[in-house]
Amino acid sequence: MVTERIAKLRAVLKEKGVDAYLVPTDDYHCSEYVGEFFKCRKYITGFTGSAGTAVVMQDMAGLWTDGRYFIQAERQIQGNGVQLFKMGEPGVPTVEEFLERTLKSGQCLGFDGKTMAAAEAEKLIGKLEAKGVKVSCGEDLIGEIWEDRPALSCEPVWELDIQWSGKARAAKCEEIREAMKKEGADAFLLTSLEDIAWLLNIRGNDIHTCPVVLSYLLMTEEKILLFANEKAFPEDVKEHLAADGVTILPYEAVYEKVKEIADGRKVILDKEKVNYLLAKNMPEGVCVLDRQNLTLLPKSIKNPVEVENMKTAHIRDGVAVTKFMYWLKKNAGKIPMTEISAAEYLYGLRSQQEHFLGNSFDPIISYGEHAAMNHYSATPETDVPIEAKGFLLADTGGHYLEGTTDITRTFAMGETTEDQKMHFTAVLRGMLNLGAAKFLYGCTGLNLDYLARQPLWEMEENFNHGTGHGVGYVLSVHEGPNSFRWKQAPGARPAAVLEEGMITSDEPGYYVEGEYGIRHENMIVCKKAGKNAFGQFLCFEHLTMVPFDLDAVLPEQMSEKERELLNGYHAEVYEKISPYLDAEEKEWLKEATRAI
Amino acid sequence: MVTERIAKLRAVLKEKGVDAYLVPTDDYHCSEYVGEFFKCRKYITGFTGSAGTAVVMQDMAGLWTDGRYFIQAERQIQGNGVQLFKMGEPGVPTVEEFLERTLKSGQCLGFDGKTMAAAEAEKLIGKLEAKGVKVSCGEDLIGEIWEDRPALSCEPVWELDIQWSGKARAAKCEEIREAMKKEGADAFLLTSLEDIAWLLNIRGNDIHTCPVVLSYLLMTEEKILLFANEKAFPEDVKEHLAADGVTILPYEAVYEKVKEIADGRKVILDKEKVNYLLAKNMPEGVCVLDRQNLTLLPKSIKNPVEVENMKTAHIRDGVAVTKFMYWLKKNAGKIPMTEISAAEYLYGLRSQQEHFLGNSFDPIISYGEHAAMNHYSATPETDVPIEAKGFLLADTGGHYLEGTTDITRTFAMGETTEDQKMHFTAVLRGMLNLGAAKFLYGCTGLNLDYLARQPLWEMEENFNHGTGHGVGYVLSVHEGPNSFRWKQAPGARPAAVLEEGMITSDEPGYYVEGEYGIRHENMIVCKKAGKNAFGQFLCFEHLTMVPFDLDAVLPEQMSEKERELLNGYHAEVYEKISPYLDAEEKEWLKEATRAI
Repeated sequence: MVTERIAKLRAVLKEKGVDAYLVPTDDYHCSEYVGEFFKCRKYITGFTGSAGTAVVMQDMAGLWTDGRYFIQAERQIQGNGVQLFKMGEPGVPTVEEFLERTLKSGQCLGFDGKTMAAAEAEKLIGKLEAKGVKVSCGEDLIGEIWEDRPALSCEPVWELDIQWSGKARAAKCEEIREAMKKEGADAFLLTSLEDIAWLLNIRGNDIHTCPVVLSYLLMTEEKILLFANEKAFPEDVKEHLAADGVTILPYEAVYEKVKEIADGRKVILDKEKVNYLLAKNMPEGVCVLDRQNLTLLPKSIKNPVEVENMKTAHIRDGVAVTKFMYWLKKNAGKIPMTEISAAEYLYGLRSQQEHFLGNSFDPIISYGEHAAMNHYSATPETDVPIEAKGFLLADTGGHYLEGTTDITRTFAMGETTEDQKMHFTAVLRGMLNLGAAKFLYGCTGLNLDYLARQPLWEMEENFNHGTGHGVGYVLSVHEGPNSFRWKQAPGARPAAVLEEGMITSDEPGYYVEGEYGIRHENMIVCKKAGKNAFGQFLCFEHLTMVPFDLDAVLPEQMSEKERELLNGYHAEVYEKISPYLDAEEKEWLKEATRAI
Repeated sequence: MVTERIAKLRAVLKEKGVDAYLVPTDDYHCSEYVGEFFKCRKYITGFTGSAGTAVVMQDMAGLWTDGRYFIQAERQIQGNGVQLFKMGEPGVPTVEEFLERTLKSGQCLGFDGKTMAAAEAEKLIGKLEAKGVKVSCGEDLIGEIWEDRPALSCEPVWELDIQWSGKARAAKCEEIREAMKKEGADAFLLTSLEDIAWLLNIRGNDIHTCPVVLSYLLMTEEKILLFANEKAFPEDVKEHLAADGVTILPYEAVYEKVKEIADGRKVILDKEKVNYLLAKNMPEGVCVLDRQNLTLLPKSIKNPVEVENMKTAHIRDGVAVTKFMYWLKKNAGKIPMTEISAAEYLYGLRSQQEHFLGNSFDPIISYGEHAAMNHYSATPETDVPIEAKGFLLADTGGHYLEGTTDITRTFAMGETTEDQKMHFTAVLRGMLNLGAAKFLYGCTGLNLDYLARQPLWEMEENFNHGTGHGVGYVLSVHEGPNSFRWKQAPGARPAAVLEEGMITSDEPGYYVEGEYGIRHENMIVCKKAGKNAFGQFLCFEHLTMVPFDLDAVLPEQMSEKERELLNGYHAEVYEKISPYLDAEEKEWLKEATRAI
């Protein structure tokens, strides 16, 4: 099937005089996950992973993806005539290097300019044009051959009431306009779906598990233009938007509208988030101020209402996950359960909670060696029974009207080895120590990440992922700019200063390939501690309220302070969660949260 | 006197048509400390501090300096007709802001272009020229009025033998030439005095306590031109340099020489280190590659010979400072001693050590409340008797053929309060924890600084200085690029990755204004730990070998691990230092390094 599609594409390329066609993974908004309409790279290669880039020429078709997906990609593209380029492996060129080396002066690279960030595209085009290669980016050639393509999503839009958002749309827009003024900007072009949803207090369902509304937004001193499918908006939502000065225009109209911006006007846009075609449509005389979206920071700094709601959401979610833990520990080896059935059981428990809206991402319930694979998500083909031994890792989350959760717990399903317990305990110590940090205002995640890795690094062990990411409020479960990392990507914007109200995950792990995986993840909110001549001190508060499995903890490997942290946390879990449990569960929880 | 000098300068300004004359603190090499010849800013204001900038106009004379020097500057400029601009205070313009606001189109700013880094000068000039202000930077107008000006230093040059340097001049030059090739450069212009001394294995005495040779260096594939006063070089040194292809030309000849560089040539220079006039003399057609000096990193990564030598130097220095500690603790309140006499006594002890060359900086021996002042250095006017109570802080260091030391100890001279002990212990815990860090290759000082501050931050206390700096080998006691910091200056180059062989100070502190100051400083060398699939792990080894005063330690405030670190360190101090002590001192040291 893929072979036929590639053949069709090659015919189109020949006709159009395009020598190589590049197919990125992005939608038109540089979203982390994309809707079905946008899955062109999957369509033309067969590879379903969340990251990858395809290139099709007359005599080759290639797929670039990273280490997480080598095995999956190899399997999925087998027999399709697509060559796998393993990114990061020695001697393997990047997509850019490949195109630079392969394309000759006078040849033409094609791609859909809506599916690549302006910053990335400009860099690529700069290099190719220096070699005399032409670039054609105005057409979606996959679209021309994709006959049964899913329609653009147009799910109903709903409003997030002020009791949930904590700040009215008008107040948010007012603040962003003030920020525009400060930057000397006449307009602000916003295309990140989470940021638009946050700004307008609207939610939708246009990306799986991420309740955003497919749209673009252009804000000036006088107007707020929202480019979206009007059919998705109920009448009352339209009226409310209109009352706040928001005009709805057709989704695609933004590409022509930006051409009308008058010369000399200053427009703020983030070239790492705005797609190339849209940026290119700006008239030459417009002064583009390329900087971080003005909405990014206020979205990440949760207001007091959001923070209080998040606490409630985490109690609801904590009740569900604690019941899940009880069910797992009680029934392991006694009733049949698999990765998928356990995920379904947990979904059922979450569904019973008030204001539950759905999963905040596809659950990662991985048993035994599966947990050593980052990004594992069980499918009917990979699903395995959960037995009364080893570790089960559960990384799951939900959306509630009160906010979004993201929690990982690792459960001892039966006997575990001393080594497993040692690693379980080391990861837990790192999680607790980072959560207990007190620090001066001005610190970033770079300053604190060491705390989470220290117990592992002291044993010369590590985990190959970031320690934490920001979390949206009924939006994407991965949100910037706050994070915990120890290394910064070269050329990246400086790490974000941690601010009161930012909510970040704290999730160190440890993985032994082919054997087991451990991760402990709480969400922590940054809050004020004392203030004095040295400055404002900050600290964190745990939002997540679910026990850590004491069956795999080695108390003697913890310092006194670490044991106090764990015992204090467990006492709080019991206090907050036990009122929602039945007698049997409550008795079990008492024991599961005992002081060690 | 200063008043007369300013009057004379104003007459020259009038004659030359210069409306404002700027006098920075730098020498021609952007050195941290400068020789007597270069102290123009002191000459024209009377202010002797190490940082400050003067501006003289017909109707005003101003001095800008920072918080460390407000009191001293006010005292020293009193009656001179110079106005103090307190940098960082609200409403106080920076020098740049002042010049921008004050100078009008058509007016002229003058300064000696040799005394400002190219990067800084270009920024200033860009702003002023945009306003129509002219800039004249070719003349040293202070030089025109300074009649009894000291001559440029011309102290004898000596060679650092390979047994001390660990690498021959020719090998170093070869490596730098390889680095040039890698960067595609035809020439490398080096003006940092420490870097030239390191590269050529030469030392001198042209800056107080910093044994460098006043010089510039221009390296190409074929030639190494050293611009310096030939009279400073003994015949054998000249012969050795010539044998390695180094040609000595007059010091000032560099300014004409760079004009001869052919168009199209690529020249590496660091605009933050090369003075403006020299950078300006580059022909327009030359392609300047503005980047960190190629010598900076190899100079900071001490080779195995240097590291071994440094260990020896620290034993010699440790013997002197341990004897000093014994003398202080034994004699406090019994014999007369003052800050200055104690510094002299310590100098005497260091002088008895083999291969001692002199102090590596002016000793900071500060008693009681004096220790709360950063940068305090006793003068006959401020000197006080040391009594049998409170803390004495001693931050001192020496140059030896085997390397350079920098050590701070805080001694309890008698009774100390519980609060003082608590802070003493907290600072010590931070010092020990940073020194005990194990970490993956790729970490910078930003990742680890938290360890040193954690005990204080947990009490909502802090210290307002960096935690550590690199240290040169018989060169400047402050050396980049390695450091421990928690904040990076905006716009600064990314923090340096810690490399095996880098030597950095680990020196947290705590200060109570008007009462006391505490600082504990060891030098630590970065070395390899295990290597595995996660990467190369690194750790530190303490070089400094002198006890911490247990009289002010509260063992119950330390974790078990922290006590183990202290006891282990003290055992090593006893083992390494006791062989060089007499019986009485040895007995005392046994007790002073007892396990707690």
